[in-house]
Amino acid sequence: MLIANAVLPDGTKRHIDVKGGRIAALLSASAGVPARGDVLDLAGTLLLPPLVDGHIHLDKTLLGLPWVPNQAPGSRVADRIEAERKVRAARTVPEAETGANLVRQVVASGTLHMRSHVDIDNQLGLRNLHEVLKIRERFQGLVTIQIVAFPQSGILRSPGTADLLDAAIAEGADLVGGLDPVGIDGDLDGHLDSVFGVAERRNVGVDIHLHDGGEGGIAQLLAIAERTAASGLTGSVAVSHAFALGSVDTDMATRTADVLAKAGVAIMSHGPGAAAIPPLALLRERGVEVFGGSDNIRDAWSPFGNGDMLERAMTIGYRANFRHDHELEFAFDMVTGAAARVLGIEGYGLAAGAAADFVAIEAGSVAEAVATRPRRKYVIKNGRVVAKDGVFAA
Amino acid sequence: MLIANAVLPDGTKRHIDVKGGRIAALLSASAGVPARGDVLDLAGTLLLPPLVDGHIHLDKTLLGLPWVPNQAPGSRVADRIEAERKVRAARTVPEAETGANLVRQVVASGTLHMRSHVDIDNQLGLRNLHEVLKIRERFQGLVTIQIVAFPQSGILRSPGTADLLDAAIAEGADLVGGLDPVGIDGDLDGHLDSVFGVAERRNVGVDIHLHDGGEGGIAQLLAIAERTAASGLTGSVAVSHAFALGSVDTDMATRTADVLAKAGVAIMSHGPGAAAIPPLALLRERGVEVFGGSDNIRDAWSPFGNGDMLERAMTIGYRANFRHDHELEFAFDMVTGAAARVLGIEGYGLAAGAAADFVAIEAGSVAEAVATRPRRKYVIKNGRVVAKDGVFAA
Repeated sequence: MLIANAVLPDGTKRHIDVKGGRIAALLSASAGVPARGDVLDLAGTLLLPPLVDGHIHLDKTLLGLPWVPNQAPGSRVADRIEAERKVRAARTVPEAETGANLVRQVVASGTLHMRSHVDIDNQLGLRNLHEVLKIRERFQGLVTIQIVAFPQSGILRSPGTADLLDAAIAEGADLVGGLDPVGIDGDLDGHLDSVFGVAERRNVGVDIHLHDGGEGGIAQLLAIAERTAASGLTGSVAVSHAFALGSVDTDMATRTADVLAKAGVAIMSHGPGAAAIPPLALLRERGVEVFGGSDNIRDAWSPFGNGDMLERAMTIGYRANFRHDHELEFAFDMVTGAAARVLGIEGYGLAAGAAADFVAIEAGSVAEAVATRPRRKYVIKNGRVVAKDGVFAA
Repeated sequence: MLIANAVLPDGTKRHIDVKGGRIAALLSASAGVPARGDVLDLAGTLLLPPLVDGHIHLDKTLLGLPWVPNQAPGSRVADRIEAERKVRAARTVPEAETGANLVRQVVASGTLHMRSHVDIDNQLGLRNLHEVLKIRERFQGLVTIQIVAFPQSGILRSPGTADLLDAAIAEGADLVGGLDPVGIDGDLDGHLDSVFGVAERRNVGVDIHLHDGGEGGIAQLLAIAERTAASGLTGSVAVSHAFALGSVDTDMATRTADVLAKAGVAIMSHGPGAAAIPPLALLRERGVEVFGGSDNIRDAWSPFGNGDMLERAMTIGYRANFRHDHELEFAFDMVTGAAARVLGIEGYGLAAGAAADFVAIEAGSVAEAVATRPRRKYVIKNGRVVAKDGVFAA
């Protein structure tokens, strides 16, 4: 297969020779289109690497069901946890179905790799994990689904969860998660003992939800960095949200960033609506890997979200006050290259030897694509069109 | 014409009898669809009143031109004003053309009424006003375009602007604007003397851009409220942005809200990306009319924006931490009923006697419409389809 007349993010026009589902060569387009049967002529359309969602909750979404109004009685994380337990109990369609609805939707928007947190607690056991494992199997070969065993109800306050996290890894989860060691469990060391205990025992990475703000949140980030170094997990640990970094002064944020960078702890931001957004540019400047994710999509937590990572890059840029092209390109990197690095996606990118995975859109540049978020003309997986004009076709 | 089987925001299904471009009657749909030639059967699609954009800049947009990267050297309002003067000087396509591109786009998304600020300064004179007057004439009968004479470069620091604002009203602008009396002009009384002087002399309303935050911004809001009452302009004055209300404590915000409510000063918010968002629910609870607008769309100020007021309601809700249905309905009201009240749109709403103006979308409720922002199935003006499936057709 030949993808002809594609404009790459650097502005060059190329023909892309695809063999065996991988990029065989990036050819100069000045020679014209060869006379071959299997040519997809993009006629100057922008061709991007596939989008990567660094933080999604495939088991939580209610996508495809009739509208479910938000029922949280208050706005604390704990209120929303309780509200979700009710929504979960009232559910009649399995998570594997609603999650599959979401996978089809995100593939149609160009996402081919994702990290999904999956709720584990002593009410659910491993039920949601089993549902998401079904989704992963169903879409095998189309999307990468990395699974984080996520203690949504806490670890210490939900007795038995520590063992369940360990069992989740044994059954197929790829990373162990955590949740506000102080804000939810009220025990920084106890929570991190469990999380890093599983990580060391099972030799897996870590991705911890941290909503706790201010200096208390910073203290938890520093403790996570210390545990990361002590466990030899440098480069395999991420903290999601980390609102604290956006709620302290620049000096403290900078000092914390230096510690995170040294420990190889990455930071995920979805461009929060009301909470403080971490200082993304500062973090990256200090050497922290910063990546993006959707977070909640039409679930008990949020009515918003659609899984479109180009829209997510826009939201991140809007919240971070990005306006210049190089800033919009940074937001784009958060949902492509940086997220792929954090997830450890093999063969990612627009280079000979990489997987022939692409998103084609009508835009003059990456910056314009982020700002305008046009419908995806083609989504291509291993040289095969899997979505066209925004419609799933795999 | 009969619009059959429309589901209204209150959930009832109705046939809408349209005569002479107005709603003649809202009929019960239980009787079935009458056998008539001129029936548009919505088959249960949600029918909403048209969207209203309370704050747009038709003269600034670069929509339809090749991508223009942001060039502001810094992030202060003053930096962006200077950057815009350069973009403006380099422009080769007239504002009447790019503004018309934007009008077509917003009509396709369901907006039929808007308030456009138009730059007036001693470099431009009334050139941009003349351009926007051309747009207003071109789309007469399709969209309401209310024009604010906006001193984008300040009044006192751009000598001659006060007289230009007055002349702008004489030539067709509907309101007089202002801009950060302290932050830009450094003279609260001097700035407000000019603005309210024109308003009193010409008997027009006022809409002032106020970015200045903190207690300094609050002091300016209080001064505007005082001038409003003194000028007999109660109910005819708005302040756009008013970030200050979101950057002070709840006590001060509440006291200020009470003063604004008493003076009939409305507050416009676009759900700012990085600046503090005013406490919208508190303002409304205290009796302040709160309405929404797009603000910048693909211009020298912002790369973002598309004029879709349903997306804007989502952005406002996302920033304001709205999650419950009644909160999403409030965000929707900000871009429909509340904005129509502030603009003084005659015959607005879904009631017998009102204009037969509608937006039809596939959603089960207003809350779902705000969260999911589906493509507009029909936009109807005076009983005539002016856009279909997101495409302008007037």
